Amino acid sequence: MTVDIAFFEAFTEERQQITEQLPPTISPVFYQDTIQEAGASALPAKFISVRTQSVIPDGWKQELDAVLTRSQGFDHIHRMFTDCVKPVALGYLGPYCSRAVAEHALMLLLMLIKNVKAQLDQFPRFYREGLTGREVFRRKVLIFGVGQIGSETAKLCRACGMDVRGVDIDPKWDGIEYVSLDEGLPWAEVVICAAALTDITAGLLNRKRLAALPTGALFINISRGEISPVEDLVSLIDENRLGGVGLDVFPDEKDLGEKMRSGDIDDPLVRQVTAFAGRPNVICTPHNAFNSAEALALKTNRTLESVAAFYESGRFPYPVPEIKA
Amino acid sequence: MTVDIAFFEAFTEERQQITEQLPPTISPVFYQDTIQEAGASALPAKFISVRTQSVIPDGWKQELDAVLTRSQGFDHIHRMFTDCVKPVALGYLGPYCSRAVAEHALMLLLMLIKNVKAQLDQFPRFYREGLTGREVFRRKVLIFGVGQIGSETAKLCRACGMDVRGVDIDPKWDGIEYVSLDEGLPWAEVVICAAALTDITAGLLNRKRLAALPTGALFINISRGEISPVEDLVSLIDENRLGGVGLDVFPDEKDLGEKMRSGDIDDPLVRQVTAFAGRPNVICTPHNAFNSAEALALKTNRTLESVAAFYESGRFPYPVPEIKA
Repeated sequence: MTVDIAFFEAFTEERQQITEQLPPTISPVFYQDTIQEAGASALPAKFISVRTQSVIPDGWKQELDAVLTRSQGFDHIHRMFTDCVKPVALGYLGPYCSRAVAEHALMLLLMLIKNVKAQLDQFPRFYREGLTGREVFRRKVLIFGVGQIGSETAKLCRACGMDVRGVDIDPKWDGIEYVSLDEGLPWAEVVICAAALTDITAGLLNRKRLAALPTGALFINISRGEISPVEDLVSLIDENRLGGVGLDVFPDEKDLGEKMRSGDIDDPLVRQVTAFAGRPNVICTPHNAFNSAEALALKTNRTLESVAAFYESGRFPYPVPEIKA
Repeated sequence: MTVDIAFFEAFTEERQQITEQLPPTISPVFYQDTIQEAGASALPAKFISVRTQSVIPDGWKQELDAVLTRSQGFDHIHRMFTDCVKPVALGYLGPYCSRAVAEHALMLLLMLIKNVKAQLDQFPRFYREGLTGREVFRRKVLIFGVGQIGSETAKLCRACGMDVRGVDIDPKWDGIEYVSLDEGLPWAEVVICAAALTDITAGLLNRKRLAALPTGALFINISRGEISPVEDLVSLIDENRLGGVGLDVFPDEKDLGEKMRSGDIDDPLVRQVTAFAGRPNVICTPHNAFNSAEALALKTNRTLESVAAFYESGRFPYPVPEIKA
């Protein structure tokens, strides 16, 4: 029996939902791991579906008909196929997890501003000194990248009484006051990075730029780790210039995640990230902001719609667009 | 030199602020600890100021002129002086930390609903299975006790898109739909306890009542631990009837806190609370919800206003009222 679609990076719950709802004429295979971790060498199917951590091997590209990334972002797939000669249908899911990610950003902000790691650490001794935090009410929050997720985050922060401004090269959402990055950084008490990864945003929020923030500002990244180098965040925390960092995303995450899962503590980046995550004013989550039951249900629906559309028309409802850098 | 006021349970930051702003004619003494922990046997001053963890010794009551609790709640002071014959001026601070406590409740809710303890635990292996949470958007939230803190919490939850109802014996705040406890519990996905401790509320949210919640509901207490017995919460979590518990307050907290600070791990309640706090779906903070810089500044202002008013008129701006049980 031929496999029609190979789903990589499929969690148990997602696999169950897709299996239940996929038409019986389509034969799937599921891998919990990335393409690299699964050690798949031969192309398992002409339709491959991944999330954000797999790399499509160059050798597969000539035989593929379609790649669907089950994510709201598509920069990783765009980059892999930039030089590909054969036409391959490339799709992504479109917005399905904006609210989940916005709530994750708010949670990280509350946890950082209230020193919750110290509170949890001190709880077993009921030791209450040194725990004074601040309120999010009236805090000045700069949203870097006001797309689907950025605008949802802006709305939620404003609903909680924060003073919100946005930075975007294409200021298309009406509900926010836009400023330039150079204006916004010295003003902001909190920066939330929600930007897509492009040639322009890669490395943009580096040490030099973030040093323009007021002392003690908080930095949160819920989009792509490559936008802000980890070593820069480490040094800004070391020097008490940043008051706290919350990260759900990391540079070169597919490689880093693989090394962390295999326990490769000799790797310098693994060591650096693990030590950083252990600090009292740093909170790291394993790229999990999107992962709500509500988003997962919508994701399965979008996945099935995308699969059906491709088999009907050869096109995805959300084709990966050219990225304007 | 005679001491005019003895401040117990004064954190470093609070002590500094009060010292700077107290008139030079008033001579204070500060203790970081409770009256019991400080081992104060003789009355140190005719004006005593505490927070929520000290017990005023019976022997002091005949000599005291005034007691000011530097807290938004006053039930503990009311109880201690119920049978006191000598007239002692009893005051509290009035609302100063409603917003801080409301934000703490929201933080606990987000942390529980997003399984953040599991996310932090699994981060060092970048292990991403089993982390699916839910969104707070559209969740059904029952606020038990809609006073200053309860109404602030209700407003914040509603701003975040939750469906909020309230339970109160005196439904005086217009902005919420009131229901009875019996109606509210089977409806609620989340219960936030923000009620004052009275003869009626003590032990009210016990095992039997909370068992009326839908399976998997979350319970958060940011007012007084006596309202919901810990052993009942333990058994409801054990049986997976509650999906998560977030506690900032604990029964008999002054005694429990003292034992926890002294490392008394042989005490059954200390053992129970510490083990409970270590569970993946339980988050315990050491009565710290109120503790924001904003609330602290307002608290110092209110403390100084209260002291000035007492010396001027013999009365506090917020006298401890009779509690209608």
